[in-house]
Amino acid sequence: MYYDELNVGDTASFTKTISETDVYSFAGITGDFNPAHINQPYCETTPFKTRIAHGMLSGSLFSTVFGTRIPGEGSIYISQSLNFTAPVLLGDTVTATVTVSEKLEKGRVKFDTVATKQDGTVVIKGEAVLLPPRRPAV
Amino acid sequence: MYYDELNVGDTASFTKTISETDVYSFAGITGDFNPAHINQPYCETTPFKTRIAHGMLSGSLFSTVFGTRIPGEGSIYISQSLNFTAPVLLGDTVTATVTVSEKLEKGRVKFDTVATKQDGTVVIKGEAVLLPPRRPAV
Amino acid sequence: MYYDELNVGDTASFTKTISETDVYSFAGITGDFNPAHINQPYCETTPFKTRIAHGMLSGSLFSTVFGTRIPGEGSIYISQSLNFTAPVLLGDTVTATVTVSEKLEKGRVKFDTVATKQDGTVVIKGEAVLLPPRRPAV
Amino acid sequence: MYYDELNVGDTASFTKTISETDVYSFAGITGDFNPAHINQPYCETTPFKTRIAHGMLSGSLFSTVFGTRIPGEGSIYISQSLNFTAPVLLGDTVTATVTVSEKLEKGRVKFDTVATKQDGTVVIKGEAVLLPPRRPAV
Repeated sequence: MYYDELNVGDTASFTKTISETDVYSFAGITGDFNPAHINQPYCETTPFKTRIAHGMLSGSLFSTVFGTRIPGEGSIYISQSLNFTAPVLLGDTVTATVTVSEKLEKGRVKFDTVATKQDGTVVIKGEAVLLPPRRPAV
Repeated sequence: MYYDELNVGDTASFTKTISETDVYSFAGITGDFNPAHINQPYCETTPFKTRIAHGMLSGSLFSTVFGTRIPGEGSIYISQSLNFTAPVLLGDTVTATVTVSEKLEKGRVKFDTVATKQDGTVVIKGEAVLLPPRRPAV
Repeated sequence: MYYDELNVGDTASFTKTISETDVYSFAGITGDFNPAHINQPYCETTPFKTRIAHGMLSGSLFSTVFGTRIPGEGSIYISQSLNFTAPVLLGDTVTATVTVSEKLEKGRVKFDTVATKQDGTVVIKGEAVLLPPRRPAV
Repeated sequence: MYYDELNVGDTASFTKTISETDVYSFAGITGDFNPAHINQPYCETTPFKTRIAHGMLSGSLFSTVFGTRIPGEGSIYISQSLNFTAPVLLGDTVTATVTVSEKLEKGRVKFDTVATKQDGTVVIKGEAVLLPPRRPAV
């Protein structure tokens, strides 16, 4: 989608049940082997009592929406802020939603980005700026 | 590390050569199959001429440093901002560095977070806030 | 196995319990993030009530039998038809069975291909044509 | 998309550069460890001189288009035929394209399914039948 096709309020989302496989693969890619993600007996001594997903894994689902839905192919990701407000446990289902909040100068677009769990709990709140693809000159 | 053990200027980093496997697995976890990451002929029509890594993949390396080095195990990730300043190509080596920039109220600590490539190019700049683990009561 | 070693009725099979990891990895390779495979709350609103495996994942087990059992190494896969007759749920065990049904011209061999679940339910029925390896000239 | 929204000629596609990671992961899920896919010195004695992707891996990209583009979410996959017409080598880029060819009885829709490589070579030809989701009763 081009800049002139995007309007304040336009929204898209992506949902995934976060599996143990996701968390283990994410640890394997990033090297984030914090015991909170991969050590179950350790986690039983923490307030959450179980392993939690990496916050950046859920945060990365915003990239999925931007790269594949709005603005989609050809966009450039300028910035993303993430406030982690609640943990995601293995087996939770996360919905990442992005909504156009403002059309900026220089062809840039600002989005509200919110991730929620199946029970509605907000797990991440933030904002992103994208540069949608340019409309080809005629 | 506890709050009182952290000082402004303390720093740690993590370095990884970003492989095709990393990028393909990251797409596989997140569902971000933007052609910029997985379609080589398409990429040859773009300014970068080749597939690029997901920005969030490099950004996730800050989580690795926080979760495994400073403050390490037991920390709670409060927030992360990411400004994507240059692309990471498959085969590039990314170093994610975090540096204590300010000791905040309520036991929180602010960090500068910078990711660079092997040639020194800054690929991400941002900030993070962490809540280090509490020192157990005596 | 060479063409002249294969007889109508020859059969082989391969069995695997289809894990969440299999389904998530298959989605990650193919990009098939249909919610039927990766969104548990969505699936609870469908007739199956739970996530199902990709039909092509079970169908790919025929390739396993052809490539590793009969005719095995050196075969060329000419064609495969698949009729999906029942869903495979995460945790189901699928047995893919191939049986020589006809020896065709030009060194080709036709197989019946059937996949069943642990309770005997047929999940895929189809046919395949293979070109077994040529016997080396003496 | 519902049955009444689909018209003969409607088409969608999905493209992916097939990496070594894809082929190895596919072997790992299916158990198809035919040396044609995972044994490079063996492959150097074959006509292709190099490892080839599993035909079913490329064939599975049709499922990606059906499950995520047309008809999309809520569709039921009835059947798929695959004629493997040329090999896909590691590093080739495959485009899977599906096109509505006929609207059948009982709400079913027939598609032509063709996969091509970056140079236009057809690697798979076949047909599929899908049952698109039913429009909810008002």
